[in-house]
Amino acid sequence: MNTTYQPIEWLGDRVKILDQTKLPGEEVYLETRDYRDVAIAIKELKVRGAPAIGVAGAYGIAVGALGIKVEIREEFLKELETVIETIVGTRPTARNLFYAAERMEKVVRQAHHKAAEVGRNVAAIKRALVDEAIRIHRDEEEATRKLSELGAELIKDGSTILTHCNTGPLATTGYGTALGVIIRAKEQGKKIKVYADETRPLLQGARLTAWELMKAGVPCTLITDSMAGYFMSRGEIDCAIVGADRIAANGDTANKIGTYTVAVLAKEHGIPFYVAAPTTTIDLSIASGKEIPIEQRSREEVAYFAGICVTPEDCEISNPAFDVTPAKYITAIITERGIMRAPYGEGMGKSSHR
Amino acid sequence: MNTTYQPIEWLGDRVKILDQTKLPGEEVYLETRDYRDVAIAIKELKVRGAPAIGVAGAYGIAVGALGIKVEIREEFLKELETVIETIVGTRPTARNLFYAAERMEKVVRQAHHKAAEVGRNVAAIKRALVDEAIRIHRDEEEATRKLSELGAELIKDGSTILTHCNTGPLATTGYGTALGVIIRAKEQGKKIKVYADETRPLLQGARLTAWELMKAGVPCTLITDSMAGYFMSRGEIDCAIVGADRIAANGDTANKIGTYTVAVLAKEHGIPFYVAAPTTTIDLSIASGKEIPIEQRSREEVAYFAGICVTPEDCEISNPAFDVTPAKYITAIITERGIMRAPYGEGMGKSSHR
Repeated sequence: MNTTYQPIEWLGDRVKILDQTKLPGEEVYLETRDYRDVAIAIKELKVRGAPAIGVAGAYGIAVGALGIKVEIREEFLKELETVIETIVGTRPTARNLFYAAERMEKVVRQAHHKAAEVGRNVAAIKRALVDEAIRIHRDEEEATRKLSELGAELIKDGSTILTHCNTGPLATTGYGTALGVIIRAKEQGKKIKVYADETRPLLQGARLTAWELMKAGVPCTLITDSMAGYFMSRGEIDCAIVGADRIAANGDTANKIGTYTVAVLAKEHGIPFYVAAPTTTIDLSIASGKEIPIEQRSREEVAYFAGICVTPEDCEISNPAFDVTPAKYITAIITERGIMRAPYGEGMGKSSHR
Repeated sequence: MNTTYQPIEWLGDRVKILDQTKLPGEEVYLETRDYRDVAIAIKELKVRGAPAIGVAGAYGIAVGALGIKVEIREEFLKELETVIETIVGTRPTARNLFYAAERMEKVVRQAHHKAAEVGRNVAAIKRALVDEAIRIHRDEEEATRKLSELGAELIKDGSTILTHCNTGPLATTGYGTALGVIIRAKEQGKKIKVYADETRPLLQGARLTAWELMKAGVPCTLITDSMAGYFMSRGEIDCAIVGADRIAANGDTANKIGTYTVAVLAKEHGIPFYVAAPTTTIDLSIASGKEIPIEQRSREEVAYFAGICVTPEDCEISNPAFDVTPAKYITAIITERGIMRAPYGEGMGKSSHR
């Protein structure tokens, strides 16, 4: 796949982030050496999608480390802690962010340990952090390439696929998860068609998925989230495939709000429901989806559009950003290490990094 | 119930219509003696909701009749035919529009018949049409008052109710259907709470339902359509209640797109799913929902918001305005003549006007 856009790029001493909130209207990039800018970009969804959040978080820690002026190791580590806390505190649901932070922390511990032995200094820790962020980026890219290849086997020639939210290169910095599978199936010469849920409130489907599928030459019809059931009932959808923000040890999957509804509809219509995610999205430390923290976002995301309030100003609004789809609704979970089917518990252990 | 707003009013020689597309921001009224303005108002959803469309259609025919200048009966009837065709051709799904037109046509036939006997003239037919439009209006108001009273019995004290689209006074010119039931339950002193689906693409839930519930003093939380499943899965919704645009003889119900998804979710969670509609919404001429024509509306309704395109300009979009919920998902249908439960076929016949 050739994409003409890079959602996140490392430029040696700074990170370049494509502002996804401006798409598809404008391609605006943010270049920064300030980790706080990266934290804000993650919070404000300039960069979003679990794998991309992980990569952005890693680079955020890297630029944060580079920006620390002190030379004394203990002081450096203390300031680095603030950087990591800030990055990790941006969004609570996507597993990949915490996974990336853990890898970065591990590098610090190792470098710190070696430093004591071989006289490594702060500069060496900084270099090690930058190298690790680049590796995390490369690993996520590679994982999505592999899982897309594996997942494409599940997509039958001639099928029409429903997807929710955005899971392409923008969301992953690589090939994509659910959208990667779809795009790979198309590259294999399969004649496929996609219904893309617009994905309220922030319209990642309308703004980003439609844009990415059109760039990839995959026929795509945009619908509102409320239309998926209609098209399923008419027999026009053959399978549903979505990404994930966090997968618990039992296979329960947190993903963009509305995913659970797609899963229930798929079950009701006897349609396979697939989750595609790198193993970095799997969190074996939690037994089930009940333990996944669900981010509550601001009422303004639902109430306002382009500065216009679409509801009475003082109307109460709830805005959970994710929901949890219990494992029983999931036909298979597609990862870079293989396709897992229920019961998920055991297989999950084997396919995770941990 | 005291409402401070009148969605449709008859002013002796003209009709006054509240432009619902401007709500909740502005209360703008259209006053017209031109049936073509009424047809445009229906097409452009300035007036919407099956019962309100029926009433607006009747008044549209009335002002159309008043505006015909010829005195020769045959010529008058020919021009009136154009008026009726224009009104009936505005929207294809709501049964109430055709019901109203049929009543108006019956009046013409009767007046025409009597005229041959007792020398009735064109003026008499005009008067009869105006009187019938006013009766249709009054009948719809009365029907929604009665069905709200009956339906309120189904609402348990302390319950949280999900609703979709808008079904209050705005949609009915009367008490409301689904929202009438909810508002009546609140008036009975029941402590209830509502989750209102925003109802994409035209946001009738966000713009109108939230507005009407706040005016009625019913606690309401606005959510996106994709969130209903989330709140059901958390046990936070006790029942769902919606209106209808057309109900087939077997109980299959066409209603705003997304209704079917709510019904599937309700079934999955063991939650009652109610439809509230006057019997004027029932169409015994069709055996099942398969025969209900589903209006396809413009791609712009999905693609644009406040003049801003939210997706690539050339993206393919589908925009069915309604879906059909098979009778098997419907716990009960609440009408002014009683509450019907499956199997619907026989009871339906008894409760229809036809």
